[in-house]
Amino acid sequence: MSTPLINQLGVVKRGITRADPAAVERLAKLGVATIHEAMGRVGLMKPYMRPVYAGARICGTAVTVLLQPGDNWMMHVAAEQLQPGDVAVAACTTDNEDGFFGDLLATSFQARGAKGLIIDGGVRDVAELESMGFPVFSKAIHAKGTIKATLGSVNVPVICAGALVNPGDVVVADVDGIVVVPAAIAGQVADAAEKRESFEGEKRAKLAAGVLGLDMYKMREPLEKAGLRYID
Amino acid sequence: MSTPLINQLGVVKRGITRADPAAVERLAKLGVATIHEAMGRVGLMKPYMRPVYAGARICGTAVTVLLQPGDNWMMHVAAEQLQPGDVAVAACTTDNEDGFFGDLLATSFQARGAKGLIIDGGVRDVAELESMGFPVFSKAIHAKGTIKATLGSVNVPVICAGALVNPGDVVVADVDGIVVVPAAIAGQVADAAEKRESFEGEKRAKLAAGVLGLDMYKMREPLEKAGLRYID
Amino acid sequence: MSTPLINQLGVVKRGITRADPAAVERLAKLGVATIHEAMGRVGLMKPYMRPVYAGARICGTAVTVLLQPGDNWMMHVAAEQLQPGDVAVAACTTDNEDGFFGDLLATSFQARGAKGLIIDGGVRDVAELESMGFPVFSKAIHAKGTIKATLGSVNVPVICAGALVNPGDVVVADVDGIVVVPAAIAGQVADAAEKRESFEGEKRAKLAAGVLGLDMYKMREPLEKAGLRYID
Amino acid sequence: MSTPLINQLGVVKRGITRADPAAVERLAKLGVATIHEAMGRVGLMKPYMRPVYAGARICGTAVTVLLQPGDNWMMHVAAEQLQPGDVAVAACTTDNEDGFFGDLLATSFQARGAKGLIIDGGVRDVAELESMGFPVFSKAIHAKGTIKATLGSVNVPVICAGALVNPGDVVVADVDGIVVVPAAIAGQVADAAEKRESFEGEKRAKLAAGVLGLDMYKMREPLEKAGLRYID
Amino acid sequence: MSTPLINQLGVVKRGITRADPAAVERLAKLGVATIHEAMGRVGLMKPYMRPVYAGARICGTAVTVLLQPGDNWMMHVAAEQLQPGDVAVAACTTDNEDGFFGDLLATSFQARGAKGLIIDGGVRDVAELESMGFPVFSKAIHAKGTIKATLGSVNVPVICAGALVNPGDVVVADVDGIVVVPAAIAGQVADAAEKRESFEGEKRAKLAAGVLGLDMYKMREPLEKAGLRYID
Amino acid sequence: MSTPLINQLGVVKRGITRADPAAVERLAKLGVATIHEAMGRVGLMKPYMRPVYAGARICGTAVTVLLQPGDNWMMHVAAEQLQPGDVAVAACTTDNEDGFFGDLLATSFQARGAKGLIIDGGVRDVAELESMGFPVFSKAIHAKGTIKATLGSVNVPVICAGALVNPGDVVVADVDGIVVVPAAIAGQVADAAEKRESFEGEKRAKLAAGVLGLDMYKMREPLEKAGLRYID
Repeated sequence: MSTPLINQLGVVKRGITRADPAAVERLAKLGVATIHEAMGRVGLMKPYMRPVYAGARICGTAVTVLLQPGDNWMMHVAAEQLQPGDVAVAACTTDNEDGFFGDLLATSFQARGAKGLIIDGGVRDVAELESMGFPVFSKAIHAKGTIKATLGSVNVPVICAGALVNPGDVVVADVDGIVVVPAAIAGQVADAAEKRESFEGEKRAKLAAGVLGLDMYKMREPLEKAGLRYID
Repeated sequence: MSTPLINQLGVVKRGITRADPAAVERLAKLGVATIHEAMGRVGLMKPYMRPVYAGARICGTAVTVLLQPGDNWMMHVAAEQLQPGDVAVAACTTDNEDGFFGDLLATSFQARGAKGLIIDGGVRDVAELESMGFPVFSKAIHAKGTIKATLGSVNVPVICAGALVNPGDVVVADVDGIVVVPAAIAGQVADAAEKRESFEGEKRAKLAAGVLGLDMYKMREPLEKAGLRYID
Repeated sequence: MSTPLINQLGVVKRGITRADPAAVERLAKLGVATIHEAMGRVGLMKPYMRPVYAGARICGTAVTVLLQPGDNWMMHVAAEQLQPGDVAVAACTTDNEDGFFGDLLATSFQARGAKGLIIDGGVRDVAELESMGFPVFSKAIHAKGTIKATLGSVNVPVICAGALVNPGDVVVADVDGIVVVPAAIAGQVADAAEKRESFEGEKRAKLAAGVLGLDMYKMREPLEKAGLRYID
Repeated sequence: MSTPLINQLGVVKRGITRADPAAVERLAKLGVATIHEAMGRVGLMKPYMRPVYAGARICGTAVTVLLQPGDNWMMHVAAEQLQPGDVAVAACTTDNEDGFFGDLLATSFQARGAKGLIIDGGVRDVAELESMGFPVFSKAIHAKGTIKATLGSVNVPVICAGALVNPGDVVVADVDGIVVVPAAIAGQVADAAEKRESFEGEKRAKLAAGVLGLDMYKMREPLEKAGLRYID
Repeated sequence: MSTPLINQLGVVKRGITRADPAAVERLAKLGVATIHEAMGRVGLMKPYMRPVYAGARICGTAVTVLLQPGDNWMMHVAAEQLQPGDVAVAACTTDNEDGFFGDLLATSFQARGAKGLIIDGGVRDVAELESMGFPVFSKAIHAKGTIKATLGSVNVPVICAGALVNPGDVVVADVDGIVVVPAAIAGQVADAAEKRESFEGEKRAKLAAGVLGLDMYKMREPLEKAGLRYID
Repeated sequence: MSTPLINQLGVVKRGITRADPAAVERLAKLGVATIHEAMGRVGLMKPYMRPVYAGARICGTAVTVLLQPGDNWMMHVAAEQLQPGDVAVAACTTDNEDGFFGDLLATSFQARGAKGLIIDGGVRDVAELESMGFPVFSKAIHAKGTIKATLGSVNVPVICAGALVNPGDVVVADVDGIVVVPAAIAGQVADAAEKRESFEGEKRAKLAAGVLGLDMYKMREPLEKAGLRYID
């Protein structure tokens, strides 16, 4: 992010820097919870964002869209900026749950090679989205149509569902939520997340065998120090 | 709607005028988003109304019910007014998510030939509703039982989830939402919606082939006029 | 519940009295709506509590957990108190939707014989929970991780989603909601619920045959007395 | 309400029939709770509608406005239709809390003789509204500005905060809420409400003297019949 | 709380044990935040409970009321159980924001010596309540009237806005919230709260003089140990 | 914002660049609605942020705080970074309404010369805050106390109530809402906002004299072109 614009609306940034494809590929194999832990427990969108159909999962580089309420004009502008492997991440200048996106736009986005859509607003044609296999995570499902009258922006930094998304960042969405990984640290985060995950199998085996977390994590002493009392 | 009643509670209207069955049949084949667009983007219920099981879909003529909080007496009164092809549309005099409806009422409604229930409140016995194939769209799922003590009304105009529903109107519900089509214009709306839908295939094919909405809808010039700036 | 503690935090009660296993087994076969009716229409949690995967169902005796916001330390303490047939019921000292629970804790709870988790907060690793067949009902799904720094309690009375749960109470959860049955009356409630259910088949058959609830429940006279007017 | 329009947007109805001024004047002296009771406990807007400053109170005849999200163009169109004694009642085609209205529009509305604004959306310049003595009841206070690009309507029936408002209806707002009285029955409702209020003084005096409602309303017998048990 | 009742509805308990009046008097002089800290940070109602007029404050012993949705019959039953110094604490068997309480009931409660009302629901006649000086904390303000048809209970334990209230407990409400102090420990809590408050003056003076909390509470070392990094 | 940190928690940035004091002084005289319009209608926080007492107003340079749920340790760390004219702007890593701030911290912040607090969370001791004249805008008022156990950060970029705040930015809060002005453009925004405001007096005078916005803004022709129909 360079100098802030006094008016960040009405702008389309073309030449964005996408995260390293190798890092994106690695992050695509990891869970959202693991990635956010690896980042130091930050970068999550709010939990009201949900997949519009069961089993939806997305990982790709963000092309950001800043929408106006009740207006999806910028979605069409964004389509042209999408490259294979991108994910459209749409925010709005105000809270609005209109159906900004449906099967026609999904057809266009899919034709461009986009991996899915994350939108802090509403979408429609959900049955068709599922048939097409175009995953969407949204705040709402709403049949309400939109107009094409006012400029927003494409590829400016946006706040989507409480998370800052810069164009080119990696966005990973699964049933547990959505995490944003800044492009510049995507590789480092993949390293940390993979390392974290490699420890999980051993822990799981121990717990499955009946070892208690109290013992495995050596919590008994700190709990006692904190003053935990057992009564009968 | 004729002269308003000073007390619209305690009334059951029997001889309601239902929308033309041919129009209902045509609307049943169309999506909620398409129908609402064809009506000029009005007539939708609020998006908090959701199907209680996946795949639920309803189209029929409204028998309206005005409930009192925590009281489902009028549901039984409404059952007698249901005819094959009807949809019960239930509103409440205040916000209340109690379980006004379950499998016994569903059995009765189904026996009357009803196509489903739209309720701005709660329902229960959801597993049984799914087994029976009786579709319900509601604000909530809640086991909370109700009493039978206070009069509401049947077949008065109601506001259900933010939409005005007059008895006899066509109500269409699918995964994208719920739309109310006034009985008097059901045929006209079906005309407009079918026409609208007939254009979609061609558009979809173009977009799938990689044509951008920017070009297909000739948006580049109006966007430029509106001041859109491309930066690198 | 004996004398209230001036500080109910930092306490683990070990020797709790669980409801009679025979009563638990009977309640496991009944629906939440039926059980809550049999209790006189009380004991339900709020309807915002939902299963994290379709088909989840739980019945067991409560081991209660009082969590601090953003902190799941007590979950590990609770694991040791779980016995086969128990259900962990977790409340928090304030509203918080963090992901207090995931697949590792589920592995541990399952190894202890626990039947599931009811939590007035968030959980994560939902796909794994479904694969493991470990049912969870929660307020939210959220990838947000938690710390282990502050004491809460285990097996103190808690308010979970608006319902009082004492350790040892029976908790039953299905798609319609969650009901808490005090341990001391579990048998009585099972009696009343079974009796109630035994009447349902006959009613269902009548309604399916077209008998109206108006006649089956003899409502016409009380409705008339209440002033119901039929108009045409 | 005559034949429904297939497209109710883009319409301004000029010659509306306002409620009888004498009835409006009488209703202006009554409380919202009393009026809604006199109407049979219907006609209230949802309780999320609140005055933007303490002490605001409105009574007048409705000029209705149907807004588009993020767009206040129709407010200017409505201004011309306002006559002395009118209240602007604004709904939106979708949920939106933008600041559709501020001190400039209030100056214009006040110059036209309007008594206030009821809006199921947001407003701004609240400090100025209070200084001017222009009462507003709204869903939100929000500085967010709006555009002027899309047609809505003026003086069509609208659903505002869950209540149907026809142009010319009486709208009364005080600290307890907002009630809509259909124009055709305004006089009757005023009669019933005044009568209702005339009984209140006597009741209040008795209760203040220590008489219990149990005795004053003769509730002991029905309570006993309903099965109320006193225990010690 | 003795043996749970299989049906806790339809019961009025007369001979309740109220907290020690001396303890109540002491708690009345303390803030809600201080009292809840002194109890170990538990006992608060949810923050959606707000005073219906500015400056409202309540401290007294609870007479509990369990209401049915849309029904305030039990309020009249409760009036008879109120003694000077009591506070009515009303919960409902389900979420409901109807106006269960207004100026007539307030007149009756005030005549009985009640100190105010805490209600997890709606109230009306708010202007009159303020004139009378009868403080109320509620979830909502709503003109919606209620009926008198179904039994709830008086003086059974209730869950009000997320807190367990037993009859006779001390309830303290001020602008910061509402806290419930179990009757049996009211004196102990008053001791702890007064002690806590006595330390505040000294701390305030130091902080006002510019001493930092970092130094006053000796936080620099633990922060450093936790890994806090200062960068420029 | 330079290179993103893989772990942005546990960091205190000391040498932040504050907006030009002259620009801050000019912005302090302008309304939030005007400033946000001058910025191109962006930069607002969500409308759930409200002043904790009537008449509160803040303008100053941001010292940002990133809190953990239920933990206000970083508030004490932030106190040391506050300089005269600063405003503390606190976000949390998850939604949490605990009372992170009260009169003791306010005393400390005021002693440092801070102008107020903006917090996407809860505060307490509201009566004292008003007495002290220390303005706070928050999401909630809640007596719930917090601990001091986990590191957050001070002076990292934060998302507060949906708006990005960088340390040193100007934050202006009044009854209409809260707007964030990036430090680098504070002067430009002040220019644009003052210019915008200078036009308002003339417009207000015309509207007060009865000129319609329809004429003053020359809207009749565009409305006609858009298809507006007047009917009688």
